[in-house]
Amino acid sequence: MKTVVLGSGGWGTALSQILCDNGHETYLWSHSPAKAAEMARTRENPLLQGVHLPESLHITGDLDCLKGADLVVSAPPSFAVRETAKKMAPYLTEKTVVVSVSKGIERDTNLRLSQVIQEETGNICKVAVLSGPSHAEEVGIRLPTGCVAACLDVDAARFVQDAFMNDYFRVYTSGDVVGVELAAALKNVIALSCGVCDGLGYQDNTKALLMTRAMAEITRLGEKLGGSRQTFGGLAGMGDLIVTCTSMHSRNRRAGILIGQGKTPREAMEEVGAVVEGYFAAESIHQLSERVGVEMPISRCAYEVLYQGKQIRGVVAELMTRAKKDELLETAWL
Amino acid sequence: MKTVVLGSGGWGTALSQILCDNGHETYLWSHSPAKAAEMARTRENPLLQGVHLPESLHITGDLDCLKGADLVVSAPPSFAVRETAKKMAPYLTEKTVVVSVSKGIERDTNLRLSQVIQEETGNICKVAVLSGPSHAEEVGIRLPTGCVAACLDVDAARFVQDAFMNDYFRVYTSGDVVGVELAAALKNVIALSCGVCDGLGYQDNTKALLMTRAMAEITRLGEKLGGSRQTFGGLAGMGDLIVTCTSMHSRNRRAGILIGQGKTPREAMEEVGAVVEGYFAAESIHQLSERVGVEMPISRCAYEVLYQGKQIRGVVAELMTRAKKDELLETAWL
Repeated sequence: MKTVVLGSGGWGTALSQILCDNGHETYLWSHSPAKAAEMARTRENPLLQGVHLPESLHITGDLDCLKGADLVVSAPPSFAVRETAKKMAPYLTEKTVVVSVSKGIERDTNLRLSQVIQEETGNICKVAVLSGPSHAEEVGIRLPTGCVAACLDVDAARFVQDAFMNDYFRVYTSGDVVGVELAAALKNVIALSCGVCDGLGYQDNTKALLMTRAMAEITRLGEKLGGSRQTFGGLAGMGDLIVTCTSMHSRNRRAGILIGQGKTPREAMEEVGAVVEGYFAAESIHQLSERVGVEMPISRCAYEVLYQGKQIRGVVAELMTRAKKDELLETAWL
Repeated sequence: MKTVVLGSGGWGTALSQILCDNGHETYLWSHSPAKAAEMARTRENPLLQGVHLPESLHITGDLDCLKGADLVVSAPPSFAVRETAKKMAPYLTEKTVVVSVSKGIERDTNLRLSQVIQEETGNICKVAVLSGPSHAEEVGIRLPTGCVAACLDVDAARFVQDAFMNDYFRVYTSGDVVGVELAAALKNVIALSCGVCDGLGYQDNTKALLMTRAMAEITRLGEKLGGSRQTFGGLAGMGDLIVTCTSMHSRNRRAGILIGQGKTPREAMEEVGAVVEGYFAAESIHQLSERVGVEMPISRCAYEVLYQGKQIRGVVAELMTRAKKDELLETAWL
């Protein structure tokens, strides 16, 4: 079948290679025609060093590659999802399946990215999401990786599974789009907070405590917003959290380390020099938790440190000495 | 109150320091009187280097320290839990609370360790368990750490919480003893398997996939055996799994790395030179899953590699190319 990946970052490029490996006619579209031409010439993406792109991969800056596509992968950075969805809209039919692989919550609207795509494409076709613990660098060299493909329409989810699954890329289906997208977006705040722990000189115990309790918080919020608890313990939640919190590839973690070492959030983000999704996710979580009335002590502290200048050392002491709780009782958080 | 820790390994020693810090009259008992005398003289435990033990801590090889104890911590290696329980039995009253902090399943009987203690002490007193992501080395230098104290009797769980909790050691209560003990014991197989991944040269994606899907398996087994799903996502489950799988402190992980590099399980265990709990846990899981009829593909593969000489590379391919599954449906595993 014909597949098109919109967005030539590391992840979009790695996914286009999987589609080629699986024998699909595949196009990788870059918003920059110059970048597309350069990649087509060198068969390399500087964001995925050492990976020689398959000769069968069509690399282009021309949106017309979308004509007649069966599967469209939406892979821009989260801030560009709406704009990219507008561009693809005229080419979609009822039979196209769109897969959103960007992670984040839209600023101001607090919409999930598949919702943004649905808005801009007038709901003409099925929109699935694909997420999980997947550094593009490792998928690029075909190391075993697993993700979850979620769509309310079970046939569309299976269609995505069939398109991507092979002996190094295992895909599970799921009907829980809300859970998968929220888990993927919200866990960036935890990754940033883990970085803060590293920066403060804390070690494994503290990070594991933070990750576990923060995941419990985010799961509560996700359930209130319609996601399934199990999804948060799955590949898009716990799985992705583990790779993000332990990897130096993560911008969220690197920003957190700098903040833990005493930089202001603004200084840290300037030094990282790229979009730190966890910073914006902290604001989204704050707004969402207020809206639905879920108590989230760790996320609230992260918000206060990132947006209100609260001192970190005091925050740790505050979290450690909160009232005594039961691990299983939800009401223990009220 | 009077507290006694039986077993002077790194974890027992770190816990005795917490009890001292909290103002309790505390005894640390070693099965070796010579070792006790040496620690009393040097105020150091070689298993917890760089930690100067509190002057108020009584270190002894005399079991009579148990007389009148309000709280008894059972902290021997798992194979010595039964023998230690026999020794403590004559000193216990209905008012004593015993806390088991060893992790494992008894060989041959497949009993949880709190069950072993209850058998040997004739159920005279409440037995709680304490578990979570807690390298002794880090607790020894008072880095923020969190654990869960579980007991069917909620007052006893709170009693343990009160005894241990302070500004660097946060304790949650739980009624799910079964879940906490199973999560702590069974996750050692996952840690060993993660080590195998490292040894094979796989990276973050593969390990996160393995951890997530193996945790899903173990949660299913734990639920069948009476534990709560939430516990497996909590501190004794996911939290402890994270520290174990990422730490070189873990003997399970080290043994796995050697196996992944091509050693036989026997050679690997000889080289690690100490008890590799995950090796025995793999057999327990195999027996338990057969008994209750839970399908566990990853654990079964681990068992086949460890006990039946199956080749690892083939196992990875087998796991990656299994039939297509849904992430949320339990029946997907049948």
